[in-house]
Amino acid sequence: MERNLFTADHELYRDTVREFVQREVVPHRERWDAERWIDRSVFETAAKSGVYALEVPAEYGGSGESDYRYRMVACEELARSHALSFAVTIALQDDLVLHYLIDLTTDEQKQRWLPGFAAGTTVGALAMTEPGAGSDLQGIRTEARRDGDDWILNGQKTFISSGIMADLVIVAARTDPAGGTKAFTLFVVERDMPGFTRGRKLEKIGLPGQDTAELFFDDVRVPASNILGEVGRGLHALMSHLPRERLGVTAGAIAVSRAIFEETREYCFTRRAFGRPIGDNQHVRFELAEMDTELDIVQAYVDRSVVAYNDGTLSAVDAAKGKWYVSELQKRVIDRCLQLHGGYGYMQEYPVARAYVDTRIQTIYGGTTEIMKEIIGRQLPPQA
Amino acid sequence: MERNLFTADHELYRDTVREFVQREVVPHRERWDAERWIDRSVFETAAKSGVYALEVPAEYGGSGESDYRYRMVACEELARSHALSFAVTIALQDDLVLHYLIDLTTDEQKQRWLPGFAAGTTVGALAMTEPGAGSDLQGIRTEARRDGDDWILNGQKTFISSGIMADLVIVAARTDPAGGTKAFTLFVVERDMPGFTRGRKLEKIGLPGQDTAELFFDDVRVPASNILGEVGRGLHALMSHLPRERLGVTAGAIAVSRAIFEETREYCFTRRAFGRPIGDNQHVRFELAEMDTELDIVQAYVDRSVVAYNDGTLSAVDAAKGKWYVSELQKRVIDRCLQLHGGYGYMQEYPVARAYVDTRIQTIYGGTTEIMKEIIGRQLPPQA
Amino acid sequence: MERNLFTADHELYRDTVREFVQREVVPHRERWDAERWIDRSVFETAAKSGVYALEVPAEYGGSGESDYRYRMVACEELARSHALSFAVTIALQDDLVLHYLIDLTTDEQKQRWLPGFAAGTTVGALAMTEPGAGSDLQGIRTEARRDGDDWILNGQKTFISSGIMADLVIVAARTDPAGGTKAFTLFVVERDMPGFTRGRKLEKIGLPGQDTAELFFDDVRVPASNILGEVGRGLHALMSHLPRERLGVTAGAIAVSRAIFEETREYCFTRRAFGRPIGDNQHVRFELAEMDTELDIVQAYVDRSVVAYNDGTLSAVDAAKGKWYVSELQKRVIDRCLQLHGGYGYMQEYPVARAYVDTRIQTIYGGTTEIMKEIIGRQLPPQA
Amino acid sequence: MERNLFTADHELYRDTVREFVQREVVPHRERWDAERWIDRSVFETAAKSGVYALEVPAEYGGSGESDYRYRMVACEELARSHALSFAVTIALQDDLVLHYLIDLTTDEQKQRWLPGFAAGTTVGALAMTEPGAGSDLQGIRTEARRDGDDWILNGQKTFISSGIMADLVIVAARTDPAGGTKAFTLFVVERDMPGFTRGRKLEKIGLPGQDTAELFFDDVRVPASNILGEVGRGLHALMSHLPRERLGVTAGAIAVSRAIFEETREYCFTRRAFGRPIGDNQHVRFELAEMDTELDIVQAYVDRSVVAYNDGTLSAVDAAKGKWYVSELQKRVIDRCLQLHGGYGYMQEYPVARAYVDTRIQTIYGGTTEIMKEIIGRQLPPQA
Repeated sequence: MERNLFTADHELYRDTVREFVQREVVPHRERWDAERWIDRSVFETAAKSGVYALEVPAEYGGSGESDYRYRMVACEELARSHALSFAVTIALQDDLVLHYLIDLTTDEQKQRWLPGFAAGTTVGALAMTEPGAGSDLQGIRTEARRDGDDWILNGQKTFISSGIMADLVIVAARTDPAGGTKAFTLFVVERDMPGFTRGRKLEKIGLPGQDTAELFFDDVRVPASNILGEVGRGLHALMSHLPRERLGVTAGAIAVSRAIFEETREYCFTRRAFGRPIGDNQHVRFELAEMDTELDIVQAYVDRSVVAYNDGTLSAVDAAKGKWYVSELQKRVIDRCLQLHGGYGYMQEYPVARAYVDTRIQTIYGGTTEIMKEIIGRQLPPQA
Repeated sequence: MERNLFTADHELYRDTVREFVQREVVPHRERWDAERWIDRSVFETAAKSGVYALEVPAEYGGSGESDYRYRMVACEELARSHALSFAVTIALQDDLVLHYLIDLTTDEQKQRWLPGFAAGTTVGALAMTEPGAGSDLQGIRTEARRDGDDWILNGQKTFISSGIMADLVIVAARTDPAGGTKAFTLFVVERDMPGFTRGRKLEKIGLPGQDTAELFFDDVRVPASNILGEVGRGLHALMSHLPRERLGVTAGAIAVSRAIFEETREYCFTRRAFGRPIGDNQHVRFELAEMDTELDIVQAYVDRSVVAYNDGTLSAVDAAKGKWYVSELQKRVIDRCLQLHGGYGYMQEYPVARAYVDTRIQTIYGGTTEIMKEIIGRQLPPQA
Repeated sequence: MERNLFTADHELYRDTVREFVQREVVPHRERWDAERWIDRSVFETAAKSGVYALEVPAEYGGSGESDYRYRMVACEELARSHALSFAVTIALQDDLVLHYLIDLTTDEQKQRWLPGFAAGTTVGALAMTEPGAGSDLQGIRTEARRDGDDWILNGQKTFISSGIMADLVIVAARTDPAGGTKAFTLFVVERDMPGFTRGRKLEKIGLPGQDTAELFFDDVRVPASNILGEVGRGLHALMSHLPRERLGVTAGAIAVSRAIFEETREYCFTRRAFGRPIGDNQHVRFELAEMDTELDIVQAYVDRSVVAYNDGTLSAVDAAKGKWYVSELQKRVIDRCLQLHGGYGYMQEYPVARAYVDTRIQTIYGGTTEIMKEIIGRQLPPQA
Repeated sequence: MERNLFTADHELYRDTVREFVQREVVPHRERWDAERWIDRSVFETAAKSGVYALEVPAEYGGSGESDYRYRMVACEELARSHALSFAVTIALQDDLVLHYLIDLTTDEQKQRWLPGFAAGTTVGALAMTEPGAGSDLQGIRTEARRDGDDWILNGQKTFISSGIMADLVIVAARTDPAGGTKAFTLFVVERDMPGFTRGRKLEKIGLPGQDTAELFFDDVRVPASNILGEVGRGLHALMSHLPRERLGVTAGAIAVSRAIFEETREYCFTRRAFGRPIGDNQHVRFELAEMDTELDIVQAYVDRSVVAYNDGTLSAVDAAKGKWYVSELQKRVIDRCLQLHGGYGYMQEYPVARAYVDTRIQTIYGGTTEIMKEIIGRQLPPQA
């Protein structure tokens, strides 16, 4: 169905992003994956072009544009480039790190940190997950104890996206040994703080260009001025930023699914077997028709979610529904598209092959499908 | 996600329909199913209350209200009554018969036929399907040949909804033996025309109150003044009315699915086993969470379709996507809800049990799922 | 794959059953469904012909044949007749009632009860389920207290197959108010015992010929000689008979699935649309090929289960695996076959339509799919 | 269900294979994948230990053991090592190359080629697929024309497993330009034949240790003594060897699925979240119970297929059913197992992560799922 989400301004922005992607991303994608590292310089050009960090307020060097439809446009254009390591890294900045930093910071902190993001010279990370605590935030063992005006941070984090690259890391730590929902606080750890070290770059089955790391905090002294939000409000901050994080995964999921579908549709009417395009097979046509339908149906929900997010009415449950459903759909769609490519679908040079491995994490990070269902399920009993 | 489809006017209308359903439908539903017949009188009260036939222009006794959102409200309230034989009969009038009669008729025909529909004293049917031609309209063998100012109609139709009850039947017949897309014409056959007889009421596995019949036309003399639209434009008329017909099935599908889901959710937190509500089982919660998600996602597409239909931009392909996908979802949802009821789900007194049998036809009539996929698939090759 | 389960003796037996079914079942099937009652006389001819009750020892009038392959043959031939109410009633006798009565009875009880079954003049039922206790046997509230040599039985059962028809009912009752696994005992309640009454025949969506009823026990005096097995061993008896009961459901499920598939395959290459058999569509061929594959794969497991059962090595978990998987497959296969029939699939005269409603209970009775998964899941943790 | 496929001899053989795998495969697996190359020396020790090439007749240095149950044992033990690149390379030798070479060769050819395989010093490949002809053998364009006693071979092959490593390549070529089923012949091209060159090692998303290549034949002079079977019988030879090839994929699929399942089961009862093993979640238990059931059911079919293969009664259709169904099950099982591992499932160090990428080709090579369904579907119309 024809979408009615975007205005002419968004389409102009689309041209900008598309041009940027063609010039700055496409020629380097393969090398980034092979080297398992994205050039730092591309973040500068991207931020300056407004491909990300649009939301940084104008006084700190950004555009102060919080309309999520611009993010959606960027997602779609990055998806079309099939440079998913780059797309995921950008999403991490916009949908997670910057969302926290714009929202929870004091003026002084904004002054210190935001200009670097607006310029693309600073990259951030968010460190919640620990070896023994994935979706279970209550299991966090990293702790910070007060020492004068500072805090001493000890612990270990894992699966941290952009953990190697990050200049700033937002770390969730336990600040009250007694536990409970007010036991956690967010700290911003900076690149050069003594005691902060990074482990090896983890070897994943996909997203080779995007770095994922273990981080270690050994008596890291963090000044109180690096506390994000209030002491004891860390869990609350995490919770309140989940809808955006999840919408980010959802937006990426539909964009990549649609991009891979379009590439596959093209393939099916170009590739010939048994003397005719494979799309002449009823089975292939039905596969494509089913996917086209599912993508359209899901797009209606995602577009509606974007509008609700802009209006401030996207609930945690609404975002959870989109997150699990669309990421699971993405998995199914890419798997079916790969199959339609036959042996070529197994070759790295084909976008569908890379998408198959790059996106398998989508139903896991940002809250697994199972956690999403728990969140939705909790609202189901009739409220007294 | 909270819907944004309806205005206060629609909600006022909802109260009217709900009150009507409680008073005129719920007390009789069981008897209608047992007798395999719906009282003719209820159509009069329904039409007068505006539960259907709203779209008949004011000069012919209706309200001239073509906003599909009112139909959507009626679908939802009828679904909540679980009186599906009645709901389907109403839908046939509004989404098929009246849509043709308002759209294709001359002023003289409108004058003759519409007041009866507005008053609920006339009920119509649409007769396309034949024993040897289901989805394949080119296979229609019923034929009409010109005889002076009249036409002589011969043939047989089957699976005709409200075929026994109908006062007027719109019949698709071949008027050009040469074939081709201009070979078909629509005729309105009236109750008392000689040579028009009805076969037995077909025994279906569901929708017992709703009648489905075979119709026979043996040298039925139809005056030219009963031709609907133009001679040779029958196929075109059928095609152009498909989006509305399909939207009608889609609207019913989401409404019934949501109604059965809500009944099941209630059941799961009331019914106890092993000492606690069955909804305390993670499996049950996940089942409910999955269905709740799928219904919300599909609702976004359906609501978007309703707006597009009102705007005149709902394409045949868009409607086909909704038709197959939502009716298939309905089948899955009702099946899962039935399972959650355990043995009670197999007992006719439970709405989910009746819905299981009443709705199995949804993926078949109005164009099967397979035909929908063909329609969608045809648009997929890159257009030259 | 060609099966290797049967010997020539089994094939001879197949001829007998097939001939019986053609003569005694097929001509009456429709009437039985319409009257919601199967003629009592057919059980006499069936038992005498060895169609069921083969396992009754020779000294009590049967054949003493416990090879389950004969049951499998009977299942397959009854499935081919599409007379599922009759098939289910027979299965209830062989796989449940007789299995208990042959296994748990004293010589004196055998003498009293088995000849009637061998002659087909006695029909039994098994009454476990209660309004508040489905799969949860610990929730049984029907109780028996000792009074001299007799027991006084009070309580209520529901969803009892053949509850109206049964001459003997095996009733599970609580005999120790303290609870625990030894709190239950099985009693045989006979037709004329004062205080034993039957409620209404329940209205199901399928299996109309097969009766299902509520039973009431109001101070029914049961002599100790009607206790089945030992006092306090009721739960143990139920548990130990589950593999056979579940194998019975599994055997019926594969037999009916295969019969409906074969009917559908025939239909697809006979029925024409758009000028050719519908089986010429790749989609239809793929549907059939997928079902054919799944049926063959499952058949290998079922045949293997039959051999294991004969050898006494079919575990409760093995039987649970077959029960849920094959009954769920049956549901999917019949649903897909119905769809392939188009509108005809919704008409009661087509076997697939009746099978759709008759078999929806298969994933529920004899332990729901969910209970089966619990049973299997319990064995999964590594054993210490 | 307890399997009854193996005898004590097979279990003794299992010990041998297991010991070999622990000593010669497990310590090198990671390196082979990193280097994208398996040490040639391991094939020598493997062949000498009887891990493969068992079927080579004793007079040529093998054991002449054609009982497929030994292959099944080898599959299972290799699957447990998670060294899938090695397992697939071995399967290629046993289920394809050697099956052709033992079956179609003259004594002279056996003398020349088989001792090298028995010693593990020769490795072979089978070259059918071409850039423009995957499943469609009629599309083969590589051609050979007679020149005296020799044949001159020209053409190009792609997706050739072990194409880089192979000493001998069986090449399907067109020998009759007129086409038809007798237009193809098999040639054995040897390592050093002039005009035979190898393209780049293809970059796949999985199976990094296993090489896959493009091969080029530019006026390669092949002596008539290197023709495999008869001129014009190439297609027939390919067809008649398909059941074995497909059984090989099926055997690998069930073995790997079961191995990954067992690893996952272990994981679920070891890994803790929210203060308890994740296997305590009903959802996780149900996931495991469902997979355990499906694996058992499919195992029954595979074991039955192995017996049928040994008996010479496994039809092409039976093998096709197993091939598509079990490889598709494998995909589903590994995907679900990966999800149960959460973030760890995306890390290469976990077997489930590597299996996810290594096995995605299973539904494609050896005939895609779609081709299998075509083969099965062709047998479905009632035979005249």
